[in-house]
Amino acid sequence: MADVKEPIVLRDMGSFHVGGRLVEIKGKPVREIALPGGGTQKVDPNGTFLVEQMYVQYFLPQGRKGKVPLLMWHGGGLTGVTYETTPDGREGWLNLFVRKGWDVYVSDAVERGRAGWAMPEVFAGEPVFTPLGAPWEAYRFGERGSWSADPATRTPFPAGQFPPEAYDNLIKQIVPRWLTTNDAIMAAYIELIDKVGPCALVVHSQSGTFGYRAALARPDKVKALIVVEGTLRGDASTAAALRHIPILVLYGDNVDKSPMFSNQRKANEQMAGMAKAAGGSIEIVNLPDVGMRGNTHFPMMERNNAEIADIIQSWLVSKGLID
Amino acid sequence: MADVKEPIVLRDMGSFHVGGRLVEIKGKPVREIALPGGGTQKVDPNGTFLVEQMYVQYFLPQGRKGKVPLLMWHGGGLTGVTYETTPDGREGWLNLFVRKGWDVYVSDAVERGRAGWAMPEVFAGEPVFTPLGAPWEAYRFGERGSWSADPATRTPFPAGQFPPEAYDNLIKQIVPRWLTTNDAIMAAYIELIDKVGPCALVVHSQSGTFGYRAALARPDKVKALIVVEGTLRGDASTAAALRHIPILVLYGDNVDKSPMFSNQRKANEQMAGMAKAAGGSIEIVNLPDVGMRGNTHFPMMERNNAEIADIIQSWLVSKGLID
Repeated sequence: MADVKEPIVLRDMGSFHVGGRLVEIKGKPVREIALPGGGTQKVDPNGTFLVEQMYVQYFLPQGRKGKVPLLMWHGGGLTGVTYETTPDGREGWLNLFVRKGWDVYVSDAVERGRAGWAMPEVFAGEPVFTPLGAPWEAYRFGERGSWSADPATRTPFPAGQFPPEAYDNLIKQIVPRWLTTNDAIMAAYIELIDKVGPCALVVHSQSGTFGYRAALARPDKVKALIVVEGTLRGDASTAAALRHIPILVLYGDNVDKSPMFSNQRKANEQMAGMAKAAGGSIEIVNLPDVGMRGNTHFPMMERNNAEIADIIQSWLVSKGLID
Repeated sequence: MADVKEPIVLRDMGSFHVGGRLVEIKGKPVREIALPGGGTQKVDPNGTFLVEQMYVQYFLPQGRKGKVPLLMWHGGGLTGVTYETTPDGREGWLNLFVRKGWDVYVSDAVERGRAGWAMPEVFAGEPVFTPLGAPWEAYRFGERGSWSADPATRTPFPAGQFPPEAYDNLIKQIVPRWLTTNDAIMAAYIELIDKVGPCALVVHSQSGTFGYRAALARPDKVKALIVVEGTLRGDASTAAALRHIPILVLYGDNVDKSPMFSNQRKANEQMAGMAKAAGGSIEIVNLPDVGMRGNTHFPMMERNNAEIADIIQSWLVSKGLID
């Protein structure tokens, strides 16, 4: 697929951390950690620590066409890698949208990836790890009961767009997550928007809510919101507050087979009704309705990811966000 | 500084994970985690998990000149961000070496950043967090006693190359680390070399040892080793085994003021003697000896990082590694 690619020409690329706060840990005993080669090392857990920052990497194409940058936010248990090379080794939405002329900022939320994470005194609860097979059924790779530890006997849905041989590469992208850090994640995202300025958000799964809350917190800066299989948690009053912000929500295939996703979509349809009543616009596109079968919860990684990027691109064009 | 930059032209950029293994966790009780909004969520820690993979991001310039890719490996408690934009917002070695025509692979080692990390059943010991002030004295930002919680009263060494106002941005790059994971880190690095093929390694701090061990494990593939303030843990027999691999070791300023770093350098000088006796070459360059004062343990991030990149570039040219 990569044989006739045009070069990517960037006027700049780089990274930064944003957000974070100082915390003081005190009164904890010094601990001794046993080292693999024998012996121990003393570790003092007390002191002042910088916590709850987030990581952002940006790619700015020569000949920018997008009027605002695209900020790409990942879902729960994931990092910005979501938007990079697909698990089967093709270009992800980062490259595809840079090629379309958009400044793209891909980030790792607080506690994920290069953002780092904090001690139990700061993050309540405990980190949660994702078993190998859990996403297969939860995220609509195949029918209930189709997961198997043996890759050869895993049966995806018919016309599945996720290459099953690349499933383990998706799992390698998953990092531990907490269930208690939403407020810290949100605070850093808002600092990111304040730093970057007017922007459009591309959000996925858990970030649906973060994107919607960010738009509510910075309604003058968020110019469009693209939600890939995520929840807009709002009501008539938020619909009114955001009536000037165009919102696109995408769903893959087999949503009806998942109570979680069909309930989520139903709630979004209700939000779309409230947006319409308030004079706003939330468009929900079910990919099967536009002829694309077999997408899971991860359409940015799947065989037809470029076609889905084109749907988003057309929508952004229709909203006047590209020159 | 960025006002007259030439565009960066890439024939490709992307990322992947490499390495990893399956582990089975069983017999652990299901736990309940209290959620911030009230209520609890059950978490079952049992199952099959993919652990100990690592993350790699690559940038391949149009018009490649380097004969082999540069693999840039970070130090302890850090990630590949080490080589990206400097804490004060200038181009880091990633950009600078891509501009010089090198394919560059920047990675996050096992348990760091986008590599993810594993449960206590897999990683022995516990994660260690770095207090705000610890690197200031340990890594030669200023005299002992010069650290202060108040940024205005922190006094760096004279002619210090690290911009003190950017110190907190360095701290934000630090992630938790374990003291027990060296073998897992090493295994994934070797898988990376096997995937990429012949290469040169740029390693920092903790990765000094990883780079040297990687050369010993793959002496046919590692064509050069550049060690920024790291230890080569070897002996006469390793010196003989690696006599065909050119090694450059760089040190910043004020090494004499740190027992840790002066002992480390002394050990490297002994290794250089053994390399010479075996017909090999380990060159140790103290930056103050070539007119560069004031570098800390993080020269790739400092004001003169481009000049230091030029020293490495000249050395790579002298070894015939660039067209």
